[in-house]
Amino acid sequence: MSPRSLSLVVAALLPALAGADTITTIPDAAVKQAIALRDQALADDTAYTLLESLTTEIGPRLAGSPADAKAREWAIAKFKALGFDKVWTEPVTYPKWVRRSESASMVAPFEHKLAITALGYSTATPKGGLTAPVVHFDSLDALKAAKAADVKGKIVFVSARMQAHRDGHDYGIGSGVRSRGPAIAAELGAAAFVLRSAGTDNNRLPHTGVTQWKEGGKRIPAAAVSAPDADIIDAAVKRGQTVTLRLALDCGVEGDYTGANVIGEITGREKPDEVVVMGGHLDSWDLGTGAIDDGAGVAIGMATGALIGKLPTPPKRTIRVVAFANEEAGLWGGKAYAEAHKTDVAKHQLGSESDFGSDRIWRLNATVKPESLPAIDRMMQVLAPLGVERGDGRGNGGPDLSPIHAEGMAALSLTNDGTRYFDYHHTANDTLDKVDPKQLAQNVAVYISWSYLAAEADGDFGSAPGAFKQGGDDEH
Amino acid sequence: MSPRSLSLVVAALLPALAGADTITTIPDAAVKQAIALRDQALADDTAYTLLESLTTEIGPRLAGSPADAKAREWAIAKFKALGFDKVWTEPVTYPKWVRRSESASMVAPFEHKLAITALGYSTATPKGGLTAPVVHFDSLDALKAAKAADVKGKIVFVSARMQAHRDGHDYGIGSGVRSRGPAIAAELGAAAFVLRSAGTDNNRLPHTGVTQWKEGGKRIPAAAVSAPDADIIDAAVKRGQTVTLRLALDCGVEGDYTGANVIGEITGREKPDEVVVMGGHLDSWDLGTGAIDDGAGVAIGMATGALIGKLPTPPKRTIRVVAFANEEAGLWGGKAYAEAHKTDVAKHQLGSESDFGSDRIWRLNATVKPESLPAIDRMMQVLAPLGVERGDGRGNGGPDLSPIHAEGMAALSLTNDGTRYFDYHHTANDTLDKVDPKQLAQNVAVYISWSYLAAEADGDFGSAPGAFKQGGDDEH
Repeated sequence: MSPRSLSLVVAALLPALAGADTITTIPDAAVKQAIALRDQALADDTAYTLLESLTTEIGPRLAGSPADAKAREWAIAKFKALGFDKVWTEPVTYPKWVRRSESASMVAPFEHKLAITALGYSTATPKGGLTAPVVHFDSLDALKAAKAADVKGKIVFVSARMQAHRDGHDYGIGSGVRSRGPAIAAELGAAAFVLRSAGTDNNRLPHTGVTQWKEGGKRIPAAAVSAPDADIIDAAVKRGQTVTLRLALDCGVEGDYTGANVIGEITGREKPDEVVVMGGHLDSWDLGTGAIDDGAGVAIGMATGALIGKLPTPPKRTIRVVAFANEEAGLWGGKAYAEAHKTDVAKHQLGSESDFGSDRIWRLNATVKPESLPAIDRMMQVLAPLGVERGDGRGNGGPDLSPIHAEGMAALSLTNDGTRYFDYHHTANDTLDKVDPKQLAQNVAVYISWSYLAAEADGDFGSAPGAFKQGGDDEH
Repeated sequence: MSPRSLSLVVAALLPALAGADTITTIPDAAVKQAIALRDQALADDTAYTLLESLTTEIGPRLAGSPADAKAREWAIAKFKALGFDKVWTEPVTYPKWVRRSESASMVAPFEHKLAITALGYSTATPKGGLTAPVVHFDSLDALKAAKAADVKGKIVFVSARMQAHRDGHDYGIGSGVRSRGPAIAAELGAAAFVLRSAGTDNNRLPHTGVTQWKEGGKRIPAAAVSAPDADIIDAAVKRGQTVTLRLALDCGVEGDYTGANVIGEITGREKPDEVVVMGGHLDSWDLGTGAIDDGAGVAIGMATGALIGKLPTPPKRTIRVVAFANEEAGLWGGKAYAEAHKTDVAKHQLGSESDFGSDRIWRLNATVKPESLPAIDRMMQVLAPLGVERGDGRGNGGPDLSPIHAEGMAALSLTNDGTRYFDYHHTANDTLDKVDPKQLAQNVAVYISWSYLAAEADGDFGSAPGAFKQGGDDEH
C-alpha cells in the first residue's frame, strides 16, 4: 500500500474516531504574510551566523562530552537573545560513549596504515590491540548467510558500496551494514567488525556512526575505514592471500549521562498551548564540527522562530523549536521528547525536524489527516517557487520527531538535496565550509513558510493519540 | 622575452657555437610505427597494473624509509620483468627526514583540534609541545613586510588561498608560502610556522611538502593545517581575540641516507649510447600511497618502455626510464642524475619526466634547437588526436630532469590537466582511486609517441653542454 493510499484509509476511519472533521483551511492573510516571511528569509543570514557561531565557538559536540554541555548553554543563550519568550530544558538520559584513541593497520600481505574510526557504542580492543585475519563480505546479506566456523576469531570486513542520489536512498545500504553488521558478526563469534564507510566519497576520512547491539547480546570492537582504505583491503583480498589487520580502539561506555533537549518558544496569540514543532539535534559526532549534521538543523529552526518572533503580531499558535539531545547514538532526545509529550500529542499542530544537511529542499511529504490536504496544497503554493515538489511518500517528521509522530503527531518530511550529504556525513569533513549560505537560507524560507501557515491554519492536521500508526525513523 | 622568442635567439647563436646544424626530421616509417604504438597504448593497462601494484604492495614511500628501499627492489624487479635489457641503480645521498608524530589544537579563544601535518625538514617542537599566540598573515608578501617585534615568540600563520586551474599555476602561491615562509618566520624570531595547506580542496586533510631553510640559518617547527581548519583559525582571528595554538611535532633529520635512482633501458639498435629519457620519482610523501605523486609517473615511464621493448625491432636510440630518488625533499635524485650524467649531456636526445599526476595531457612545451622544430611539429601531428596542443612556454623536462636540462639537455614539458591535482597532492588522499585508468593510458600514449619519434629522428634536438641556459624547475 502506498503511503498516500494509507492516508485515504486513515481518512475513511477518522470520522468514526474523531467525529465530524471539517476541512482545514488557511486564511488569505496568512498566505500573504507567509510569502513576505519566505522572501525575507531568502535574504536573511541569521541561520548562517548561528551556524558559524556554533561550529567555531563550540565545535564537535559528542553527546555527553564537555562540549555537549557548552552547546546547551549556547542554545539557551541564543534562544533568549533571538527573542524566544519561553526557553527551558528537558532531561535526556543515556549511556555515555567515549572515544579515547584509535588506530589500525593492515599487517599482511602488505603493511598499510588505515584511516579508521570506531563506531558509537563499539567496545575497546584489548590493550596493545587485536590482530586477526579478515573474513571478507560484499554485503550485509552475505554476512547474514555466513557460517560461524568461517567467522569465529576473525575480523569481519564488509565492503558494501553506496552511490550518491538526490534522496540519499543508498544510505540504507551503508547504515544497514553499520547498525546491524557488528551484532551479527558478534553472534557468529567474530573478534571484531570493520566496514567500508557508509559514505559516497573517496576521501581518506572514515565515517563514524552508531551501531546497535542486541540487549544482553555479545559486543565486539567495531569500526569503519575510509573508502580508499577499503579499496586496499579489497585489492589484498583479491590477491587470494590471507589479509590480517591490527586494530587498537580505546573507547566504550562510561556509565549514564543526563543531558537535555533545549526548547525555545514564540508563544502564539490565540492558542498558545497548540504548538508547531521544528528543530534539529544539538549533538554531533566528534570528528567534524557538526555543521551539516546537525548544526544546520538547529540553526534553521532558531532562525525561523527568530524571524517569526519579530512580527508585530505573533501567529495564532506557538512556534516551538527543539535542539534535541543525542540523536546520533539512537534518537535519545527524540524518544525522551515523545515520552514527555505523548499525553499532549493532540496539541502538536504539525512537526518537522531538519536533519539532512542544508542543501536545497526539493520535496515535501506529509502524513496528515485527509481533511487537511487542502491546507497542504495551499502550503505548496508558497513552497513551489522555492523549488519544492509534493512527494508521494510518508512524512515522519525527521529522526527526532518520528517518535512523537509515532504517538500521533501530524508530520512533514522535507527532503534536502542529498547528493553530496554522504560525502561528508559523520566525518572530519563535516565543517562549515560544506554549507552553502544561499541554500541554507532556502531551507529557512521553507521552514518559515510551512510553520507559519500551520500556526495560522483554521483547523488541525489530524494529530491525536495513535492517529498515524506507520511511524518510523529515517535517521541520518 | 617569451620562451619561444628565446628559442629563436638561441637559434641565432647556435650555428656559431655548434657549426652547421641541419634540420632534424622524422622518417615516415617512424611516424607510422608511433601511431600504432599510440593506439596500442590507449588500450593497454600496463601502467595501471604497475601503479596498482606499487600503491597496494609498497604504499607510502617516504625517502629514506624502509618502504623506500622496498620500492627500489620493486622497481628493479618490474624493469626486469617488463623486458628492460639493462637495469641498474645510481646512488643518491641526502639528509633523511622522519615524521614520528604530530598533533595540534587551537586552545584559545575556542578549543579546536586541528588537522595538521609537519612539513618536510621541519624541526620538532619541545617535548610536551609548544603553545604560543598566533600572528596572522594573508600572504607571503605580508609576512615579508612584518617587523620582528610583531612576530618574535609567536606562531606565524599564513592563510593564503589557491584556486584550481588547468595548468595548476596557483601552486606558485601555496608552494611559495610553504617553501619560503618558515625560513622568513625563523629569521624574524617566530616560535613556529603554520600555513593554510597549499591545496585547492576543502577536506580535513592537510598537505605536507618540503620547506627550504637557509644554509646555517635558524630552523623552527613548520606545519600545514587543512583548509577547513585554516577557516576556523581565520574566523577566530576575525573575532579580534588572541588566538593561541598548541603544536606537538615530533620529526626531524636523522643523519644522511643513501638511496638510489633506479634506471632501466631498452637498448637502441643503431645508437645505443644516445638516450631518450623519461620517468617519474619513486619516493612519495608518507600520508597517502603516492599514486598521483608520483607512482603514476614511474608507471607511465615503465609502461612506455615495456611497450616499445616488445617491438620486433628496437628503435634507433635507447629508451631510458628513471625512477628518481627523493624528489620530494628537494630534487635529490634529479640533481644526482645531472651530476652523474652532465659529461654525457649531449648524448641525451630529448627528455621529459611525468610528475603532475595522470589526468589528460593537454599541452606540450619544448625547449629544443630551432632546427629540430620541424620534428616537434611532426610529433604534434601524432599527439594532436590525443588532445595535446602546442604551448608557447618553455619545456624544462619536469622536476627531476630540470637539473640535466639546465646542463644542456633538450627537453619537453607535457602538462596534465591539473584542475583536481592540488585537491589530493601531498595528502592522505593521494591514493589509487584518484587515478582514472583511461586518462593514465592517454598519458602512456603521449609518452610513447614523442619518445619513439625522438628515438627514431634523423638528427638531434640540440642537447649540448650549456645549450639551454634558462633551466629551472616546476616542482610539484
